[in-house]
Amino acid sequence: MNTPDARSIREAVAAAMPLAQQLFSLLRKETAAGLGVSRESYGRGEQTAHDLAAQFARDHGLEAAIDPAGNLYLTLRGRDSSLPAWITGSHLDSVPEGGNFDGAAGVIAGLVIAAGFRRAGIVPARDVTVMAVRAEEASSWFGGSHQGHIGSRAALGILAQEELQGAVHSRDGRTLGEHMHEAGFYPMAIWGASPYLAPERFHGYLELHIEQGPVLETIGKPVGIVTGIRGSARARSARCIGAYSHSGAVPREYRSDAVLATAALCSGLDEAWTEVLAAGGDLVFTVGKLTTDPDVHGITKVPGETRFSIDLRSQDTTTLEAMTARARALADAIGRERRVRFELGPFDLQAPAKMDAALQEAIAEGAQALGIEAPALPSGAGHDAQDFAHAGFRAGMIFVRNANGSHNPHEAMAVEDFCLGTQLLAWMLAR
Amino acid sequence: MNTPDARSIREAVAAAMPLAQQLFSLLRKETAAGLGVSRESYGRGEQTAHDLAAQFARDHGLEAAIDPAGNLYLTLRGRDSSLPAWITGSHLDSVPEGGNFDGAAGVIAGLVIAAGFRRAGIVPARDVTVMAVRAEEASSWFGGSHQGHIGSRAALGILAQEELQGAVHSRDGRTLGEHMHEAGFYPMAIWGASPYLAPERFHGYLELHIEQGPVLETIGKPVGIVTGIRGSARARSARCIGAYSHSGAVPREYRSDAVLATAALCSGLDEAWTEVLAAGGDLVFTVGKLTTDPDVHGITKVPGETRFSIDLRSQDTTTLEAMTARARALADAIGRERRVRFELGPFDLQAPAKMDAALQEAIAEGAQALGIEAPALPSGAGHDAQDFAHAGFRAGMIFVRNANGSHNPHEAMAVEDFCLGTQLLAWMLAR
Repeated sequence: MNTPDARSIREAVAAAMPLAQQLFSLLRKETAAGLGVSRESYGRGEQTAHDLAAQFARDHGLEAAIDPAGNLYLTLRGRDSSLPAWITGSHLDSVPEGGNFDGAAGVIAGLVIAAGFRRAGIVPARDVTVMAVRAEEASSWFGGSHQGHIGSRAALGILAQEELQGAVHSRDGRTLGEHMHEAGFYPMAIWGASPYLAPERFHGYLELHIEQGPVLETIGKPVGIVTGIRGSARARSARCIGAYSHSGAVPREYRSDAVLATAALCSGLDEAWTEVLAAGGDLVFTVGKLTTDPDVHGITKVPGETRFSIDLRSQDTTTLEAMTARARALADAIGRERRVRFELGPFDLQAPAKMDAALQEAIAEGAQALGIEAPALPSGAGHDAQDFAHAGFRAGMIFVRNANGSHNPHEAMAVEDFCLGTQLLAWMLAR
Repeated sequence: MNTPDARSIREAVAAAMPLAQQLFSLLRKETAAGLGVSRESYGRGEQTAHDLAAQFARDHGLEAAIDPAGNLYLTLRGRDSSLPAWITGSHLDSVPEGGNFDGAAGVIAGLVIAAGFRRAGIVPARDVTVMAVRAEEASSWFGGSHQGHIGSRAALGILAQEELQGAVHSRDGRTLGEHMHEAGFYPMAIWGASPYLAPERFHGYLELHIEQGPVLETIGKPVGIVTGIRGSARARSARCIGAYSHSGAVPREYRSDAVLATAALCSGLDEAWTEVLAAGGDLVFTVGKLTTDPDVHGITKVPGETRFSIDLRSQDTTTLEAMTARARALADAIGRERRVRFELGPFDLQAPAKMDAALQEAIAEGAQALGIEAPALPSGAGHDAQDFAHAGFRAGMIFVRNANGSHNPHEAMAVEDFCLGTQLLAWMLAR
């Protein structure tokens, strides 16, 4: 049996779309909360989603496995199980009051491809494992000291043992380790002789996910090919320290105005941002939090302090490093000029993850074969795919157009777009 | 008897300085609160200060009168009581936990001049009335709808009757009218056929006050001649409305970032400020309050809203109007460019008060005669003198050097500087 042609792929996936719609509906209904859904990492909602996926796998003849961290693996056998397998998937947890598609779309895409292939008699070249990842959104449920993306990093052997104690549940104060154990898993078995998922056993990792930004929506394309996942450099609690004084009585040259100094820093970094973009670089820059001290500030006081955050993201580590250095240099210069002192504090660095170039090319070929317009774009948000890339997997991602962003009940992905993205993913998995 | 010469003035005032130091000490002791002093408008501390002033007047042969609002007038008769009299003074209330000198210095200067003149046998050309003004700091004690400076405006007939009901005590919630009545005064008698103080009865109003800014301290001069009291244009609750979005996933051109837009507005107005100063204009510009929404903002969210205040002050109404227009134009342009909407709201306008040019000149002549270096400078803070100017009085002010600003327990005026300021005031009052 040969690799199926574009038409067979297209038809097999289209025929399986009613299954996808049933899964999405069921999932929404069973995990509804307020306006949106709540599928808490290692909580009830996430478990409900995993149960639905496992039931679907039983109904459609897929082989199931669970690793010590509770990740679920549902496998469709290929023509040659001795070849390195494809692994595809995403996470089934959500943020509190999140949308139904963030994460789940990638798992459901994999499941209905497997079901569609079986119904259409398509046998992929190699095993295809659909992975339902645990706790990608752990940062929304657990505070304290951890890096999020718990399930994928546990499976890949890049989760630090301390994170199980360091991550503390925002509501009940108990640790991630306790929650994982109570959910029925084996936290201490995560750190075995070798990671549960080793790159050499796999052909690559592919993840379908809704786009969390507005790019596809704005340019009017249904599907995108992700070039890389931006890394970040974040100053979480930067400060500018000036001096409070009388807003009427103190002339300009005697002021230490923390707001105008902070505004100058923001404007300077905004200018640096446009320079990076003009030079073809990749960067986003955000000051998401900025505030004078509500206990002391006043309309008629020169402000003596601000507190703010800086979030820089780029696909290029050098851009992150250059912008961090620029922020420090600007802060020094503005501080001297305006008689204030900036304390930016440390920048937490998270490395960017490049998507595999050959996989990007293969996905582009698939898109052409299927007649789908699929422009290349970066991912600004983090995804399980970055952990696979960091662990040495070839990783690729397909974005599906989505309105209204993610992490809110108003996510809006059309079933037609989901179908096109799933066909493209199927084209890859059949190979 | 002729107008006394500089030497007689200097000696008469220097000889009275121990009286001033006694008054300051007594006042501090009797109204101490925490680190500083508390002389609540129409409260116990203010009354204590008025009692001390009245006792001093009795001890030194001054005539006393009280108006319906509780302002105290202590008069030294001059050679010709038919001439329009000098009125000098300041307020005796303070902010909560304030300093001992703000306000009181002007009353004590007047009192010790009167006592010093009597001891030295100096009889001024015209009557000299020392006024102890009530409730200049009312804005620190009463919230609600009123313009502060209650005592002087009541005496001058420029207090609106509604303010007695509109001003509500921050602690007990009762109105200014109630507090005034309970303190023993006659709020309803304030609005008689004519104001208690009519400009035609007076030669002019002179006020000695500590400088609340750092100018004299920085340039090393003991005394200053005030050119005018800055008016203000204030936007109390301005907003910038953008849209919250994902700080990683949304490219620059799709953002509606309220913080960067607000920073651009601040930087633009800061630039406009330097232009006004470079052209020789008078202006201060302050954004004392600026904050993203603590309930919604986050390090990884493009900020969708800011709230902030704008305080513009100038001696020139045209500068205030031009800057207000500039703020609105900048807000519009930045709004269009950055896909946000500014709601600056109304600018509350308070007109500047020019000090009388002839009085400024006379004070400068006095300084020269006395050998005191007294540069001209504007007052950024409000003072009772502005109400006299608005009511049609010729008004003049003498600033005394003071470190650490005002409205705090750390006000620092040297007795030597106070003596020089008081000598200069005495030189004027003798004429």
